[in-house]
Amino acid sequence: MTAIGEETAAAAVGAQMHALVERLYPLCRSITGDGVRATLDIVGEHLPLQVHEVPTGTQVLDWTVPQEWNIRDAYVADASGRRVVDFAASSLHVLGYSVPVAATMPLSELRPHLYTLPDQPSLVPYRTSYYQPQWGFCLAQETLDALPEGDYEVRIDSTLADGHLTYAEHVVPGRVADEVIVSTHVCHPALANDNMAGVAVAVFLAKELAKRDNRYTYRFVFAPGTIGAITWLARNAERIDQVEHGLVLACAGDRGRLTYKQSRRGDAEIDRVLRHVLAVSERPHEIREFTPYGYDERQYCSPGFDLGVGSLSRTPYAGYPEYHTSGDNPDFVTPEALADTLAVCREAFAVLDRNRRYRNLSPYGEPQLGRRGLYDSLGGRSDAKQAQLAMLWVLSLSDGEHSLLDVAERAALPFDTVAAAADALRGAGLIKE
Amino acid sequence: MTAIGEETAAAAVGAQMHALVERLYPLCRSITGDGVRATLDIVGEHLPLQVHEVPTGTQVLDWTVPQEWNIRDAYVADASGRRVVDFAASSLHVLGYSVPVAATMPLSELRPHLYTLPDQPSLVPYRTSYYQPQWGFCLAQETLDALPEGDYEVRIDSTLADGHLTYAEHVVPGRVADEVIVSTHVCHPALANDNMAGVAVAVFLAKELAKRDNRYTYRFVFAPGTIGAITWLARNAERIDQVEHGLVLACAGDRGRLTYKQSRRGDAEIDRVLRHVLAVSERPHEIREFTPYGYDERQYCSPGFDLGVGSLSRTPYAGYPEYHTSGDNPDFVTPEALADTLAVCREAFAVLDRNRRYRNLSPYGEPQLGRRGLYDSLGGRSDAKQAQLAMLWVLSLSDGEHSLLDVAERAALPFDTVAAAADALRGAGLIKE
Amino acid sequence: MTAIGEETAAAAVGAQMHALVERLYPLCRSITGDGVRATLDIVGEHLPLQVHEVPTGTQVLDWTVPQEWNIRDAYVADASGRRVVDFAASSLHVLGYSVPVAATMPLSELRPHLYTLPDQPSLVPYRTSYYQPQWGFCLAQETLDALPEGDYEVRIDSTLADGHLTYAEHVVPGRVADEVIVSTHVCHPALANDNMAGVAVAVFLAKELAKRDNRYTYRFVFAPGTIGAITWLARNAERIDQVEHGLVLACAGDRGRLTYKQSRRGDAEIDRVLRHVLAVSERPHEIREFTPYGYDERQYCSPGFDLGVGSLSRTPYAGYPEYHTSGDNPDFVTPEALADTLAVCREAFAVLDRNRRYRNLSPYGEPQLGRRGLYDSLGGRSDAKQAQLAMLWVLSLSDGEHSLLDVAERAALPFDTVAAAADALRGAGLIKE
Repeated sequence: MTAIGEETAAAAVGAQMHALVERLYPLCRSITGDGVRATLDIVGEHLPLQVHEVPTGTQVLDWTVPQEWNIRDAYVADASGRRVVDFAASSLHVLGYSVPVAATMPLSELRPHLYTLPDQPSLVPYRTSYYQPQWGFCLAQETLDALPEGDYEVRIDSTLADGHLTYAEHVVPGRVADEVIVSTHVCHPALANDNMAGVAVAVFLAKELAKRDNRYTYRFVFAPGTIGAITWLARNAERIDQVEHGLVLACAGDRGRLTYKQSRRGDAEIDRVLRHVLAVSERPHEIREFTPYGYDERQYCSPGFDLGVGSLSRTPYAGYPEYHTSGDNPDFVTPEALADTLAVCREAFAVLDRNRRYRNLSPYGEPQLGRRGLYDSLGGRSDAKQAQLAMLWVLSLSDGEHSLLDVAERAALPFDTVAAAADALRGAGLIKE
Repeated sequence: MTAIGEETAAAAVGAQMHALVERLYPLCRSITGDGVRATLDIVGEHLPLQVHEVPTGTQVLDWTVPQEWNIRDAYVADASGRRVVDFAASSLHVLGYSVPVAATMPLSELRPHLYTLPDQPSLVPYRTSYYQPQWGFCLAQETLDALPEGDYEVRIDSTLADGHLTYAEHVVPGRVADEVIVSTHVCHPALANDNMAGVAVAVFLAKELAKRDNRYTYRFVFAPGTIGAITWLARNAERIDQVEHGLVLACAGDRGRLTYKQSRRGDAEIDRVLRHVLAVSERPHEIREFTPYGYDERQYCSPGFDLGVGSLSRTPYAGYPEYHTSGDNPDFVTPEALADTLAVCREAFAVLDRNRRYRNLSPYGEPQLGRRGLYDSLGGRSDAKQAQLAMLWVLSLSDGEHSLLDVAERAALPFDTVAAAADALRGAGLIKE
Repeated sequence: MTAIGEETAAAAVGAQMHALVERLYPLCRSITGDGVRATLDIVGEHLPLQVHEVPTGTQVLDWTVPQEWNIRDAYVADASGRRVVDFAASSLHVLGYSVPVAATMPLSELRPHLYTLPDQPSLVPYRTSYYQPQWGFCLAQETLDALPEGDYEVRIDSTLADGHLTYAEHVVPGRVADEVIVSTHVCHPALANDNMAGVAVAVFLAKELAKRDNRYTYRFVFAPGTIGAITWLARNAERIDQVEHGLVLACAGDRGRLTYKQSRRGDAEIDRVLRHVLAVSERPHEIREFTPYGYDERQYCSPGFDLGVGSLSRTPYAGYPEYHTSGDNPDFVTPEALADTLAVCREAFAVLDRNRRYRNLSPYGEPQLGRRGLYDSLGGRSDAKQAQLAMLWVLSLSDGEHSLLDVAERAALPFDTVAAAADALRGAGLIKE
């Protein structure tokens, strides 16, 4: 594909991802309930999904699956019956997991149930109370300031009842059973970057991987944050040993530079690969150390699991003023940023998938490459010298300790050149895994 | 205690330490003899001491306890009988361990026995000859220059005879038998910073520790330099394994910045703690690598023992012009510097004493803190967010490998916050040692 | 020897080395043949050599000893019979390993057999075709440009026939059988820096070592590049375990700064020693990481052997415009540069030969040095303080883990001072290997 062809394709896929974000955006997601199911239905139009329903009360690691929350309508209406806060306008307006309420009360009594952002008076905050029964509304400080004293009708038509926690998986099979997991949270209501952008990148990454010949099996996990990842981990105890690498996608579509947060190990192969790909791509980016707060890397990297799972974002967790507010809407996310995040995932997994450790089968002195046609076969190509150096480097470092990525970094050669050299040497029987 | 209260207390204890330095200063200490005993008597007014007397001739490691040296009077008198050099004026005036002499001789014959500092003509040097029998006087170059030729009466009324080497210990018991030793030398005559300042800080540190609930047992060793530490090591072979950490205090009271000299290991826990405490305190300070010269850390860190013993000074060993001269007098030492050195010891031992390695008992995913009241209990405090982060960090790093100090440094949180989080988590049964 | 005496001696040996380069320069060396034998004959005038002749067809590691190549005459003559390219003028003019040819052909047919450097039109390139049968001539682009079209007589009077590969060894015996190898390639025709300079330095280094009392046995290998080193390795399989350290000498005489290329291990003792010697000498120099291209360190450091062999050059492999051209002639090499390279070898091997790991036999506390006369014996010397510090450092670090070079670097003391301190301590029975 030419560079211009690649740009056109990137623009097209960026637009498709942005359209998906826009479509998913308004749904009222939470950690359980029909909003998650509706989200997965739309994802399912792109990818075949295995949807899991886990009953309320199921013990998952240290946690218990909570009651399922669903909501049909909610509002605050003034004395004239006008809805001054209306769930129909934005699913952000209701405190997540609000218990039902139907009452009329003076503003003074209502105030403790109203959440605003005094420092960002035009924005609606995102708030939840999953594990303590409460009800409440989120609104702009400006809206609140405009409310006259007096009585208001308050209504939240929600149910909290035994039901299920819903998550889904999509698997792209590879040549080996060892897995790479790509995990993205699907629990937030009307927020675009956090995290319908992550969902969109995951969806289109899965589509691309399906067209490649992959060594690893790639498992995509679409699950509510925290409790969803914990549920997945609890129900996949026997699979954990197969999880070789993983990536959490979150806040993947804003205009900021890319941020890779390393796994708890800090030197996991996924960390090495992302650092390499971001460095050689010369994109502006930041590499962060692991911290035990953020997204579901917290669970995958908890010390008992300690998986090689990093997290790729643009502006990371809690790092932008619009974070967890109505400012995180589809305009905050761009097709270009989505396409760029997807490109980095593509490049990183291309390296990860081919990054092997070889053993030089002719390690005493250099093998005579000319006799095997490994010089001749390259003689006519303009990159012949690099290819030849790459072969010498692969032979020198293939002692079972160094991966091809190690070779590429040590030799300051492109990974592709090194991987191609390794293919040629393997073809000649000079190295093996 | 308020900040002003702390300042007042620091000023008070600084003044008390300085008064102790002034009182101890004039005594004629050496590596044996009544000057050491008199010094320990005064220390004993502050702390109960166990005083040890080790007979001359006792084999201690590679060394032998020497004869005991005592001195009653010494002078050089001119033809008129005027004492031009007089031990009564300063115990520095006699070469340490001088053999007795009573003679009259011309200045030309006396000169080889006179020690001066030509480059610091107003100062009296400190000189000794412990292991080669000699006699001599130390005086200012200016004094020497003023002496006319002619006969002088020379008298040193000293005895070198079988006796004892004297050292003392004070123990602050802790909850465990593992020990922290604090060692300070008591062998130098009229020198204030080297080392009555170290003695004063040790005394007041011991008093403070006695008021705390300590995990470790703290053992204070007041012993002559080199031979005293060697004697202690020789007589405590069975105890060495219990010595977990140690600190040598020397030159602890001058106006210079603090200097911490690391143990031979360089990464002993005491090294980590002092580096941390000095760094976060934002005091001007210097961290030095171990060298096999200096004070008694040389003995504790000899390769056979290789204990985790560092050394805390202000301007270190041989680092100031007044070093080992009459310029190192009580004016060279300040109450503020003594109080500051004591404060660092206090802060360091507060960290050391609580610095444990824990194991997360719920390491698979994050434990649900809310259910255990670990969010609620903190909700009302202004430092709630830091406390919550500290709990997440302790849970993440409590794999038996990381100490609380590791957590504090990795998380960039105050050690106290981390230790409090660990206490809360231990209380909830989520971690254990 | 005084500094002036040293300078005079350096100038004398520099001149002798340069004279040897000039004498060896014109011979037509290749990887086999009489040019190598003639070269070794001249080396043999300086050093007794063991010359090895390995028959064509011998399997050596992954390679096979090729047919022997010899050449008596070669030229391109124009229609008038004038030799426009003449082997007699320079052995560079013939493509190495050219098969015989005797023909007359138009220039157009001859051109594909002519090698020039269009970017360096006055220089003759050096080209070979060892493993693909070809014939050709190397000449200046200027010469080629001046040739009129027309017929030319072409003649190469060479033979390619079963014979031998020739290499030689010279051994300087030491007190132990463990060996240091010094390897230098003897395969290039009329090139001075690459590598008659390396040969000259090796020859004079061997002469100097023969006058010293050496711990190690030093083995000098004069062999053709690549296939020669491979042959030596193949024929010395049983000796490899005795090879403790090694140095490849190449491009050792140009005006550039010194370059040390580290072994594949990067932390081999030879690497440590060369880094140290170059650093303390304050010569301008460069330390390079290992790369699997260059000279015969490629073979010694192939992953199956992975020997501690580095490479010392001035301007390294392919690093100067005259590289592998007629510009690399004796004027390109200077007596001063040759003497300087030799001096670094001398200094490095002086450190390497004495660099031992000792064990302190009195590791509990400091041993009493005064009792053993180790203070007294030094008292009168101006370097007494350094010597005393060196003893304390050797005692402190002699735990079997640290070499004397480690001590010198940690203590920031000259290696000689540290080695002398170790000798004194060993003499007193305080340390042993």
